[in-house]
Amino acid sequence: MKKVLSIVCLILVLATTVVSAAAKNVFAGNPKEEYYMVTFASGIEYWRGCFKGMQDAAKLFGVRAIYTGAPQADVNQEVTVLEQVIAKKPAGIAITCANPDGLRAPINKAIAAGIPVVTFDADSPNSNRYCYLGTSNYNAGAAAARYIAKLLGGQGEVAVSTVTGQLNHEERKSGFVDTLAKSFPNMKVVAVGNDNNDQTKAATVIAGFLQARPNLKGVFCTDALGGVGAAAAIREANAIGKVKIVSFDTDKGTLDLIKEGVISASIAQGTWSMGYWSMTFLYNIKHNLVKPVDGWRSKDINPLPGVVDTGTNVVTKSNVDAFYSK
Amino acid sequence: MKKVLSIVCLILVLATTVVSAAAKNVFAGNPKEEYYMVTFASGIEYWRGCFKGMQDAAKLFGVRAIYTGAPQADVNQEVTVLEQVIAKKPAGIAITCANPDGLRAPINKAIAAGIPVVTFDADSPNSNRYCYLGTSNYNAGAAAARYIAKLLGGQGEVAVSTVTGQLNHEERKSGFVDTLAKSFPNMKVVAVGNDNNDQTKAATVIAGFLQARPNLKGVFCTDALGGVGAAAAIREANAIGKVKIVSFDTDKGTLDLIKEGVISASIAQGTWSMGYWSMTFLYNIKHNLVKPVDGWRSKDINPLPGVVDTGTNVVTKSNVDAFYSK
Repeated sequence: MKKVLSIVCLILVLATTVVSAAAKNVFAGNPKEEYYMVTFASGIEYWRGCFKGMQDAAKLFGVRAIYTGAPQADVNQEVTVLEQVIAKKPAGIAITCANPDGLRAPINKAIAAGIPVVTFDADSPNSNRYCYLGTSNYNAGAAAARYIAKLLGGQGEVAVSTVTGQLNHEERKSGFVDTLAKSFPNMKVVAVGNDNNDQTKAATVIAGFLQARPNLKGVFCTDALGGVGAAAAIREANAIGKVKIVSFDTDKGTLDLIKEGVISASIAQGTWSMGYWSMTFLYNIKHNLVKPVDGWRSKDINPLPGVVDTGTNVVTKSNVDAFYSK
Repeated sequence: MKKVLSIVCLILVLATTVVSAAAKNVFAGNPKEEYYMVTFASGIEYWRGCFKGMQDAAKLFGVRAIYTGAPQADVNQEVTVLEQVIAKKPAGIAITCANPDGLRAPINKAIAAGIPVVTFDADSPNSNRYCYLGTSNYNAGAAAARYIAKLLGGQGEVAVSTVTGQLNHEERKSGFVDTLAKSFPNMKVVAVGNDNNDQTKAATVIAGFLQARPNLKGVFCTDALGGVGAAAAIREANAIGKVKIVSFDTDKGTLDLIKEGVISASIAQGTWSMGYWSMTFLYNIKHNLVKPVDGWRSKDINPLPGVVDTGTNVVTKSNVDAFYSK
């Protein structure tokens, strides 16, 4: 009987050791920890991919990810939502900003209260946020240029349809134009048009290009609706396959046209990565895992990378099925 | 007796459950997993901070980080080292490239063999590496501009000492010049010199500026030796405090001069972050944790962010002690 009891004791001790060893894994969070994602225009499909990435990371850490946002793309409404989230004293906040400076004060307030904040997709660069995670639009345009060059064997006339005057679209255009000029001497951008993020307008713009430029071999559209409009114009002109389209983003309309072979490719943003790494960064700050130097909190030192270009991928017929949202 | 035995059985079952729950934490790696950091000029102090970050992350994951590299800044030597590392079939490789294209073939070979590779500090952009983690030199120059503007109350004449023709230094200079031009209308860059990464040359260049520009209020040096040379010139001219220096990097000489009050500040690169996040990214790939879309491996999709700007911090008298290496 004594022997049995001592075995029981031994097992208990072993079990306790195992439990404390398990508890020691710094990546095992508390299931009660709540991390918020805050957006504007909160119902749009685009954010679903971002939140999926955040949820996937939260699951690995054993913590909770919660989605909220302002229904409209309205900065005041978003400030109100953010204030409500701060009042709940969450473990961390990932926010995309309807306006860079409008969100600055509440972001700084959260951080002053000890709540880690990162921005994703749309930054507030003058706030105290630890990090911004989003697409480098210039690099995204460069990726589009490399892909259209590959499609066309490095030669021919191409055009761009963009949203003139809107920073992210101008950057995509510049990345595209600069990359072709620098790396593909036998390709030429012969026309740039403004589709104003409107499908019908894009169809008109591209129809004009097709008429004016009989040697046109490709079109880069910096916005998804531009791509759908370009597809309509090229179908109308019986030029499917003769004029290649490289579009942007992964709306269902775009993916369907890739599947059909009307759009050759689209540039997918790393929305899942934005959410996954936002969550991972917040967890690392909250659990005090990142320590570039001792006592960084009191020394005005940011322990995280400042900017993450979440990158892009090229969607084509061969991988399009993976990009439909589930 | 039967009762005791059933208790023992129950405890055993519980212990097993705890063990498997512990094993289920996806961030608990196998202590036998080996991740390599590969450098060139492998003895220099700069890499120590990078490897410290990698080691810190490896410790959290319970895996091994191993440092190796080519003794010289020689690309052929580094290729040999990388080939030797690949032959050991490690769990992952973080490499800084002596030459962007010289390392491309062995990096691609490693990835084809299923070994995740990221680059840090110096990239091989045309290779298949999953991610590049390093300082955006343009952003670093912008940070220097914002800090010198703060020091000088947003007005006055400043000069730049740089390494003309070397890309990372030209980018630092451009970030500095552009930021002042855009955001600080009362500041003016009145001179730009080439110190050629040489302390004596820098002292001569800055002495010339001091003579030619009696209203000079500040100097930005894009390299550490330039900063030390500038300090000598300003000391010689009895202008300590009258002309502020913002330098680059955290060599001991620079830190000592900050402590002494001769150099006002220096821009510290995120070396620790390069190592910490390289290790974290490699672990995530190795353990198949990042899944932006199902089956990304067979679909030509990069599951990681493409580029991480590991950021900078401003080192001043108030936080300089934290930057001495231990």
